[in-house]
Amino acid sequence: MRYMAVVSYDGTNYHGFQSQINAIGIQQVIEKAFRLMTQTEIKIHSAGRTDKGVHALGQVFHFDSKLNIEPQTWVRAVNQRLPLDIRVKKIKPVKSDFHARHSAKSKTYKYVLAKKPSTAFSKNYEVYIPNLNIEAMNDALPHFIGTHDFKGFCQYVKDKPTIKTIYKATFKETKKHYIFTFHGNSFLKYMVRSMMGTLIQIGLGKLESTIVKEILETQNRSLAGKTAEARGLFLVKIYY
Amino acid sequence: MRYMAVVSYDGTNYHGFQSQINAIGIQQVIEKAFRLMTQTEIKIHSAGRTDKGVHALGQVFHFDSKLNIEPQTWVRAVNQRLPLDIRVKKIKPVKSDFHARHSAKSKTYKYVLAKKPSTAFSKNYEVYIPNLNIEAMNDALPHFIGTHDFKGFCQYVKDKPTIKTIYKATFKETKKHYIFTFHGNSFLKYMVRSMMGTLIQIGLGKLESTIVKEILETQNRSLAGKTAEARGLFLVKIYY
Repeated sequence: MRYMAVVSYDGTNYHGFQSQINAIGIQQVIEKAFRLMTQTEIKIHSAGRTDKGVHALGQVFHFDSKLNIEPQTWVRAVNQRLPLDIRVKKIKPVKSDFHARHSAKSKTYKYVLAKKPSTAFSKNYEVYIPNLNIEAMNDALPHFIGTHDFKGFCQYVKDKPTIKTIYKATFKETKKHYIFTFHGNSFLKYMVRSMMGTLIQIGLGKLESTIVKEILETQNRSLAGKTAEARGLFLVKIYY
Repeated sequence: MRYMAVVSYDGTNYHGFQSQINAIGIQQVIEKAFRLMTQTEIKIHSAGRTDKGVHALGQVFHFDSKLNIEPQTWVRAVNQRLPLDIRVKKIKPVKSDFHARHSAKSKTYKYVLAKKPSTAFSKNYEVYIPNLNIEAMNDALPHFIGTHDFKGFCQYVKDKPTIKTIYKATFKETKKHYIFTFHGNSFLKYMVRSMMGTLIQIGLGKLESTIVKEILETQNRSLAGKTAEARGLFLVKIYY
């Protein structure tokens, strides 16, 4: 039977979603919890990797198991065997052709900038950069929307297509934060952080708002701002 | 010149305030930051220790330095050399007879219980215990107020006086939390966590509300509930 699961995690103490040699990945921790729970080997397949230090509110993965267990029982039993910084929110049976990555239609990421210096308690979940011109960043934001070649806004991997569509790029101000949200069909490695790094340079007055358009047209990564820090980035939701 | 400082810290990754052999204490991290900043040895004296995993919003310490530095410069320069989970909030010159511990008049601690299971992001700063009878806990709470022998509510250290005064013991419910706050002249090792452990047992229906009075009268620690977990405890403020 195939199951899909929604999981949230605090990425602070992990080397990303995917298991790596000599570094603990979130995938390996979840697979271990399933092993402890079911006494069987369960391999999980995520909608996509997140990098070291990146958080997720609604990452999705699928897995196969012969065990016919009630959704709520799955959730409770696996959470009991997971560290508290990884919480499975939902598990439900799906059709056998469901695939967490291939079936995904789109994804939302948000990037959280703090309005004031981080406290001892907030520092893993936001990035504080003083004296940002938020208006200039907002002027640049709509330029990301649409179908573009994002080769200049990612860590390029040979032969991997870099043309992606951003459906929405929005800005929200809360009491403590400036939140930038990106909804797109799919995202490349370091793409959101590279986009944010460029927006931050615009906010600091070191780059013009028009640079976004120029990078999208020229695919020249050397024009982009430094990749923004992982701890401000949250994978919010995967749409199917 | 003598200075007093207010510091907040996330206790999650430290073995308490005091430096220990083979374990990093918050004190040693702050002293190292001062050393890096001033190129001199500065010993800090706190208002009291906090245990492993306990947090502080307003811990206080004093230190002596010949350097005549502006308060804001002290704060900025030491914070630049501190990890982000320790943040100095204030440094100001004080009279030479000020002593962070001896001059302290009273302290406030709060203990944070979660109303719902912790998320991956909240788990270090609250404790979730299902099915608590909050009314029963509130019935027991006023029994702590006043001057009592708290020997039954602490880890007893020989020859250390155990008579303490609790001025206020209050309960507050927020959207996500049940918060218990204790204001007292001083606190013994594990005292708040031992009081909370007993309140939790009352909330679970395993102990009667009257047990608080009984433990205070008999000083019988074996009647008290298990010491509550460190991660729900915050040192809020030191009063001078």
